[in-house]
Amino acid sequence: MHNLSVFNSLTGKKEKFTTFHKDLVHMYVCGPTVYSNVHLGNCRTFISFDIIYRYLLHLGYKVKYVRNITDVGHLENDSDDGEDPIIKKAKKENIEPMEVVQKYTIDFHENLRKLNTIPPSIEPTATGHILEQIELIEKIIKNGFGYIRNGSVYFDVIKFNKNSTYGKLSRRNLDDLVHNSRTLDGQNDKLNPQDFALWKKADSKHIMKWKSPWGEGFPGWHTECSAMSMKYLGNKFDIHGGGIDLKFPHHDCEIAQSEALNENSKVKYWFHANMLTLNGKKMSKSTGNSVLPGELFSGDNNFFSKPYPPNVVRFLFLQAHYRSILDLSEEALMASEKGLKKLEIGIKNISKLKTSKSTSGFDISKWEMSCYKAMNDDFNTPLLIAELFNAIHYSNSVLMGKEKISKKDKNLLMKKTSIFFSQVLGLNLLVDNKNIVSDKLLGKTLDLLIKIRNKSRSNRDFDTSDKIRDELNKIGITLNDNEDETTYEY
Amino acid sequence: MHNLSVFNSLTGKKEKFTTFHKDLVHMYVCGPTVYSNVHLGNCRTFISFDIIYRYLLHLGYKVKYVRNITDVGHLENDSDDGEDPIIKKAKKENIEPMEVVQKYTIDFHENLRKLNTIPPSIEPTATGHILEQIELIEKIIKNGFGYIRNGSVYFDVIKFNKNSTYGKLSRRNLDDLVHNSRTLDGQNDKLNPQDFALWKKADSKHIMKWKSPWGEGFPGWHTECSAMSMKYLGNKFDIHGGGIDLKFPHHDCEIAQSEALNENSKVKYWFHANMLTLNGKKMSKSTGNSVLPGELFSGDNNFFSKPYPPNVVRFLFLQAHYRSILDLSEEALMASEKGLKKLEIGIKNISKLKTSKSTSGFDISKWEMSCYKAMNDDFNTPLLIAELFNAIHYSNSVLMGKEKISKKDKNLLMKKTSIFFSQVLGLNLLVDNKNIVSDKLLGKTLDLLIKIRNKSRSNRDFDTSDKIRDELNKIGITLNDNEDETTYEY
Repeated sequence: MHNLSVFNSLTGKKEKFTTFHKDLVHMYVCGPTVYSNVHLGNCRTFISFDIIYRYLLHLGYKVKYVRNITDVGHLENDSDDGEDPIIKKAKKENIEPMEVVQKYTIDFHENLRKLNTIPPSIEPTATGHILEQIELIEKIIKNGFGYIRNGSVYFDVIKFNKNSTYGKLSRRNLDDLVHNSRTLDGQNDKLNPQDFALWKKADSKHIMKWKSPWGEGFPGWHTECSAMSMKYLGNKFDIHGGGIDLKFPHHDCEIAQSEALNENSKVKYWFHANMLTLNGKKMSKSTGNSVLPGELFSGDNNFFSKPYPPNVVRFLFLQAHYRSILDLSEEALMASEKGLKKLEIGIKNISKLKTSKSTSGFDISKWEMSCYKAMNDDFNTPLLIAELFNAIHYSNSVLMGKEKISKKDKNLLMKKTSIFFSQVLGLNLLVDNKNIVSDKLLGKTLDLLIKIRNKSRSNRDFDTSDKIRDELNKIGITLNDNEDETTYEY
Repeated sequence: MHNLSVFNSLTGKKEKFTTFHKDLVHMYVCGPTVYSNVHLGNCRTFISFDIIYRYLLHLGYKVKYVRNITDVGHLENDSDDGEDPIIKKAKKENIEPMEVVQKYTIDFHENLRKLNTIPPSIEPTATGHILEQIELIEKIIKNGFGYIRNGSVYFDVIKFNKNSTYGKLSRRNLDDLVHNSRTLDGQNDKLNPQDFALWKKADSKHIMKWKSPWGEGFPGWHTECSAMSMKYLGNKFDIHGGGIDLKFPHHDCEIAQSEALNENSKVKYWFHANMLTLNGKKMSKSTGNSVLPGELFSGDNNFFSKPYPPNVVRFLFLQAHYRSILDLSEEALMASEKGLKKLEIGIKNISKLKTSKSTSGFDISKWEMSCYKAMNDDFNTPLLIAELFNAIHYSNSVLMGKEKISKKDKNLLMKKTSIFFSQVLGLNLLVDNKNIVSDKLLGKTLDLLIKIRNKSRSNRDFDTSDKIRDELNKIGITLNDNEDETTYEY
């Protein structure tokens, strides 16, 4: 039905895309930890998976797309220690952890909505699956890969590695994985420094904790995604994705957990979306090199000279392949704004083309095949966008009388460009923008009409000046002649 | 600090509002069961509690507002039997229960966002609190008010009623509560027909089920709200609210559960929002007398002649007291639209008033006190709206030169009307509507300009006709003169 090939992080190769279940794709993507405003880099990741989701739907697949919300903070570093960021934020803002979760889940949803991403089919939360996580841990212990120490449960990486390969996704060698052995709380409980926590004992001060067979505690970083992906997608599913920073340890630990549960467990394709930098440097709150989506959309930031609407940001993100690093800069945003406008106008103008008996200089079916070839090559959106510009370039030549197009081809081009633009790339934000633009333009147009009317009056052409007032009145706009100026109201 | 009195459904009286914790209100509202598009009646309920939430915030309280999402279907009738509506819908749509939940949670959030309600501080889900519900049931059993039968757990109403009062919220007498004794599945397990399920055994075909000390099953209808309200607000909290249809059995069962857990449990005020009817009759999907929020906003329905935007609907809802039945009809919607426009323009016009040395005929502090008196009388929004119209009436008299206003009073009136309109009533939707309106008006205004230009051209007044084209060009609107007509583009 198609010729999609995808880059599999697990094999490091492009592979032909096939599914476990005919016509049905099971996809799991690691979602955000909701303890602060959603990061622009995360937005890029979720737009990348939105493109993958949209394209699979476009190809005719039914897609069960599961993206979790981590609402009990996974721990900040690989050694499974440090403070839970949700609890930390709750203390800082003097509210409850679940109020932190609610606040930033709303922020996350709102920004992804503005960026025109389609919500996933299921959006499970970590706290909503504590029982499932406990069951999973119990099975791992039963299978001999988990051990209990002092109310916590750890995964025995060394034992697992005897018959399987730990670190195969990130291609790390277990011997290289000996950690900096800072002495951290709980670190001493582990048999080996590479082991990771499945369940952590909560001390009496810990706010987010649940009863378990091992006492009160909370799940480890990697437990939730294994529990939720297997609950909703089974132990064999097609796609597992996330940001590139999750490859290790998160995804490698997930693989170990799944295989420890069931040696037949398998994710067919691992996809990893690359980073976003700001002015050439890693984004980081601590260095101040960071801008929030809301600040970018409103213009309220120190990096850019003006606001850039969500569709311009989305268009910029799609101009790099999802596996490449993308840099956010004023230059790139301005170019994106200009390019998007050109593309929008170009697509709109196709409907205005005068048709001829035949088409000259452009093979629409060949062009359409190139569009699919771009997307079939591991979702290559920059190539697809280049193809859309090719089509617009041709259409503009017809508009200027330099080329010809048949009626059939015109209709085909109109339909196809709009499908690729709106459905596949998700750039159908035209209406919202138009309304904002309209409001400004209406003011300016009315100012012009008032000028014309004043001129008519000074020329004693009362016929025209009265007509302007009366006609505006009919459509609901009232002109008020004050002493020195005319104002309008609607 | 204020003089708020509220109607307490539990006592059937208006009472002075005081809180357990100074300056802090703990409020729990029963949220939706997400197995279908949100009902307009539910929207009215949540707007009612939005008003209560907003007013408490306005009075300076910190409010912890918890509103749950029921994502494991409570059972459809009082006898705790029948099919879980979420599972039923999942079978019908051939998707998973959690996909049903996601679809209708999004619908719910989207409609409440359009209706300008503020999200609650915490929005817990029933499936996210299975462990807490199991713990609660264990305690009720331990306290002697729950019994296990055949994998299910029931609440012993007769035993509870010996030292407490079952049905005190709805004022039902236990003797009157003998149910129609249809023989239903599981009914025979109960000691008394009035008993209700805390936990239900799941048969092997049941999709949504969890492990428990009593075998695989799922929580009863009333268990989740007790577990979640007590988890986030403690066993004594200030306000518990919901739709009036939840008074019995849901809220009476919640009271019984809480008191069975801890005899000191107490909700200080019970609030119940009244029904919405459609053209004088109960809304009901089965009789066809039903319209969805989206259908009302888009005009895509068989009941009304045109679309009514969310702010008009919200304004209509606020024109009845939350404890009165409100009828939705074309007449009421049209009146609401007209009234809202009048109020919006009126408030906008205050800024245009010419000021005098003194104010005649209107005592602003007295008026402000009347506004607070309205809201302090159990959140009487219709009275507050009437007071806003009084203020506008006066302001319009000043505008027409019939009354006078001082600069100080003008500023005060501008500030106060806008606070009551936007902050207290939550009617700050002006900008969105304006944009939609602008787009239509811009088209009509441009049509008029083109007419004027054509007239100038036929009068050989090329100075004017060129000016129109050039000035429009400057603001980004291009006129295209075709053979028979002039079109515009922007």
